[in-house]
This record gives sequence, C-alpha cells and structure tokens, in this order.
Amino acid sequence: MARAGEEALIARYFAPLAGPGAEGLRDDAASLTPTLGHDLVVTADAVVAGVHYFPDDPPGSIAVKALGVNLSDLAAKGARPRGFLLTLALPDDWTEMWLATFAEGLGAASRAHGCPLLGGDTVRSDGPALIGITAFGEVPSGTMLRRQAAQAGDRLCVSGSIGDAALGLALRLAPDPALGASHRDALLDRYLHPRPRLALIPALRRHARAAMDVSDGLAGDLRKMLAGTGLTARIDVPAVPLSAAAGAAIAREPGRLATALTGGDDYEILCAVPPDNLSAFLAEAREAGVPAAAIGTVESGEDPPCFLDGTGRAMDFARTAFSHF
Amino acid sequence: MARAGEEALIARYFAPLAGPGAEGLRDDAASLTPTLGHDLVVTADAVVAGVHYFPDDPPGSIAVKALGVNLSDLAAKGARPRGFLLTLALPDDWTEMWLATFAEGLGAASRAHGCPLLGGDTVRSDGPALIGITAFGEVPSGTMLRRQAAQAGDRLCVSGSIGDAALGLALRLAPDPALGASHRDALLDRYLHPRPRLALIPALRRHARAAMDVSDGLAGDLRKMLAGTGLTARIDVPAVPLSAAAGAAIAREPGRLATALTGGDDYEILCAVPPDNLSAFLAEAREAGVPAAAIGTVESGEDPPCFLDGTGRAMDFARTAFSHF
Repeated sequence: MARAGEEALIARYFAPLAGPGAEGLRDDAASLTPTLGHDLVVTADAVVAGVHYFPDDPPGSIAVKALGVNLSDLAAKGARPRGFLLTLALPDDWTEMWLATFAEGLGAASRAHGCPLLGGDTVRSDGPALIGITAFGEVPSGTMLRRQAAQAGDRLCVSGSIGDAALGLALRLAPDPALGASHRDALLDRYLHPRPRLALIPALRRHARAAMDVSDGLAGDLRKMLAGTGLTARIDVPAVPLSAAAGAAIAREPGRLATALTGGDDYEILCAVPPDNLSAFLAEAREAGVPAAAIGTVESGEDPPCFLDGTGRAMDFARTAFSHF
Repeated sequence: MARAGEEALIARYFAPLAGPGAEGLRDDAASLTPTLGHDLVVTADAVVAGVHYFPDDPPGSIAVKALGVNLSDLAAKGARPRGFLLTLALPDDWTEMWLATFAEGLGAASRAHGCPLLGGDTVRSDGPALIGITAFGEVPSGTMLRRQAAQAGDRLCVSGSIGDAALGLALRLAPDPALGASHRDALLDRYLHPRPRLALIPALRRHARAAMDVSDGLAGDLRKMLAGTGLTARIDVPAVPLSAAAGAAIAREPGRLATALTGGDDYEILCAVPPDNLSAFLAEAREAGVPAAAIGTVESGEDPPCFLDGTGRAMDFARTAFSHF
C-alpha cells in the first residue's frame, strides 16, 4: 500500500478521533476552554520504542500505553480529561498497517476515557518511533491535587495492585515456565496496558491531601512525594496490595518482591489521606470499582521512606527507583 | 562532567525556566487557567535533528527554533503566549554542555516572548534528538483566528519577507561564494532563528478574517488555507516581499525565486483581510514593527492558487509544497 503524506495521513487516521475545538485537525492549533470556575491541568509524557515499550508490541497496545500514562497523571491530580495533543515521530520504515492499528487503539482508548484528540504534529525521525502526548484535564479552580502536600500523620494509600507491570516486564525478559499461564498473562497485560484510575477522581478529590501516580516504582515515587518536605514515611510491606498473579510470582521467587516495590509502570495512584478521612476514602474507592489500601504513614523526618517487612525489618533495595531515562 | 539523572537535570537546567502554575517542575502536571472571558489556544510542533535542523547547529539556536515554530502558530491564531511544555528526547551521546547551552537559549527565548516553561518530559532515545513543544496561548472567547475562514474578495497579506530561510538552507547545502557574506549570513540566520510574529497579533485580531503561519512554503500553505473551501487565489509574485538578501540571491540565479515561494521555514503570517480593512491592517502592522504586504486576492473557484509573474504568466512550480515529514 502506498504510504500517505502527512496531510492524507492525518485526514485518514486521526481526523476521526478529533473532538470539539480541534477544527477537524485542519488548523495549526485548537481552542480549549475550561468549564467556568475550573483550572486546566496540563501534562506531557512521551513513550519511545525500545525504551518504554517493545518495538514489536501490538500498535494498539502502544497507543493505549501512550495515552494511558498521561491520563494516569491527570487522575492523580484529580483532573477529568478534556482532550489531548499527539506528537508522533515515525521511523523511516513505518507502514500504513502499523499506523492504522495504532490509530484504532488510540481511538478506542480516547473514546473509553472521554478524551478526544485536539491536534498535534507528525514528524519523520531517523530513529525509533516516539509518541508524545500532552493531555488536558480540568479541576475546580485551585484544587489540583499536588504531589508534595502531605502532612505528618497522613495515611499513605495506593490504588489497585503494585508491581504487576514490573513483574510482567521481568517475565517477558526472562520467562518462568513454572508460573501458570493465567498469572503470566495477567502480569504481561498490566505491562502492556496501563489502567488510568480516572474512576478514583471523586474519592481523591474529597479525601486526599497529596497524590501522584506510581510510574517509576512505589519506592522511588514515594521518595519523590516526600523529598525536601521534611517528611518521611514508614511502609508496612505486607499491607501493599498484590494481585494474585504477583503473589504467585513472588511466592516462587521472593526476590521478586523488591522488583514489585521498585519497578516501574504501575500507573496506580499513591496518595496521602488525613487519618479522619481514611475509612471514607477506602469505602468510596471500593464503590468506584478501584480498591485502595492503606500501606503506611507519613512522619516527620529527613530519612528516606522505610519499607518494613513482615518481621518489622527495614528492606534494603539494591535500586530504589526505576528510571525510564 | 558526569551526566545528571532526569531529576537532577530538570532541577539544574529547566526549573529556572518554570513559570507560575508549574509547581517548580516538581509535579507531574501544571495548572493553567485562561484569563476570564478567554479561550486557551493549544498547538504542538516537534523538531527532529537531521530533519528540521542540522545536528551540529548551535544548541541555543535549536532551542530558539523549537519554541519559535510553536509561538509562530500562536501568533497566527491571534493568541498571546501563556506557557509551554517541553518533551525532550535525548540521544545516547547527549552531553551536559549541549544541554546547558540548549536550556540557556530556551530560557532567553522564553523570557523574550513572555512564555514560561510549565512542565514536560525528558526521555532517552536510541536515535536523533527530538524537541517537542506544546505551546499555550489565549484569545478572547470565540475569537481564535482560523485557517480556513477566508472569503472571496479578501486580500491576501504576508508579514516580513518570504523565502529567506529556504534560501538560507539552500546556501548551506550548496554555498555560493559569489553572494556577499552579509547577504549569506542574513539568509542563514533566518533559517536558524524563526521570528514568531507576536507583535502582529493586535493588527491580526482587529483586521484579519483568516490566518496561518507560513511554515511549509507560501505556495503550499496558501493551498492549505483554501483547500476544500471553494476558493482559490491569484498571487502577484512581484508583490511578494523579499529581503535585500533574498533579492540578491535570486538576481544571481532566477530559479531561486521558486525556492523562495515554495520552500519552508518562513514562519511569517499569511492572512486574508477584507478589502475595507486592508489599509488599516498594513498601517498597524508597520507601526507594530512587522511590515506586511498585500500579495494577492481570494477568488471563488476550485483551481489551485495561481502565482502570476511580472509578465502576468502563471508560474509552474516543480514542487508546490515543502514537507518536513
């Protein structure tokens, strides 16, 4: 199939994803106005072939990840999605088939999360594919949830389950045939398909004091939440929620627990909740279909956060933070 | 010099460029709210080493181009800059020196145009550097200037001078020692350093009916302005403003006129102005320090726009549009 030029490519694959204000992607810019009394929240994250995903991942999955990692940031800020811009750098050997499948996955994710395409740029790159997304959300004025607003005594909570994606990546790099296929598939799927926790927004907005998404590993991201604030934290590792699949993988090889706690790509929410709000937060999260768990407490102090195992001993991670960079 | 990790790199080079709402770049998102009664205008453009600039261009110049091409889009939409997000993909061999100079140039351009950094993402890429920028501007509600809003009878105008950057690029690829050094330097400089025509915004907002920036060549961008609208245009080529340097280059080699009219990287404004507004538009543009010129007229018709040379004959371009893609 002959490959289209940039304009034809936009008209064919991306114009169907365009939302109001996007001018059908026939202009160089889009207009976007927050609802009266709201702030816009903006965030940008890029994924690069060979760094953030495997070049032979299904193109639809790559699209789900590229949009999902950005929507995860919006969810952590308590911001409802309004739209996104796409910067797509295509390597010389791009195919119409790849692009069609990518756009199909992107469209499905965009519709599922109510986050239409507003514009972007398509460029050629003599290198790996790069998908850069800028996502826009909105919050009532002045209420964006901040990363570094925790206070001593707050309870730390995480959504969903921790470590699945990191274990999925590890299993992809070094298969473990003795782990059951359903567990393996569940972990691999979490690596491929982040689930932005947008359903948690109302509970976060009502009850959390600080929040961020867990993208570079729970241990490293918790450190970022507290760095320079004069606060530290104690984490009760047995309280960190693990999926059945992660539990099975760790049971087979206990060293995988450190991978789960320090590996990347969770795209869960880490938040600090005042103690008086804790039970309401956990109940509303459960009702919203995104279970959350209290895993520790914020305390005064300059030490790095401490992860206590089942015997009360501090875990010593070889690597405390994952970095895609 | 040891190279910094992502967090240290952001703190060292980019946090000093951060504006209000950017949370000192210590969060995953920024908040941004248009002035009451205004719409936000969003645009994204990326530049890639080896495609949009030469890898050995001065890093500060690359920064000026990366931000400038986005601010040029805002200017064409009548939107005053409010801030930008930066997605920076760095190749494996990046150096602190390159990054320091890049950030210095970006900071200077950001301050000069009143457009602070609000956030972004830094990623590693096993390929050429890519600088993706999403720029935010604002316009009074409902007044974003559109690309495809011209009407038959409107006069077409361009700002500044056309073709300098394309001729600068041509001279860089094939030097012409007989062209004087000052002319050559002027053209090379226009290729390196786009000048976003933000000063033209008030005149555009008062008088223009449609506008876009000229990034892919005057001929091709004019075609985009009119495609599918049932309109065409006649351009009086001798009226197209040329710089002294471009005039000298074309005098030496008349074929360069086609390069000037079809080549990319002008980053001037092309707009359609109702005839009754023309003299006021030109006067206000001149007062704003950005001379503009009327170069033709919008007419009903489905034919491609027609460029008439000094003898009234239609020019026939081998290539009507430049594409960076």
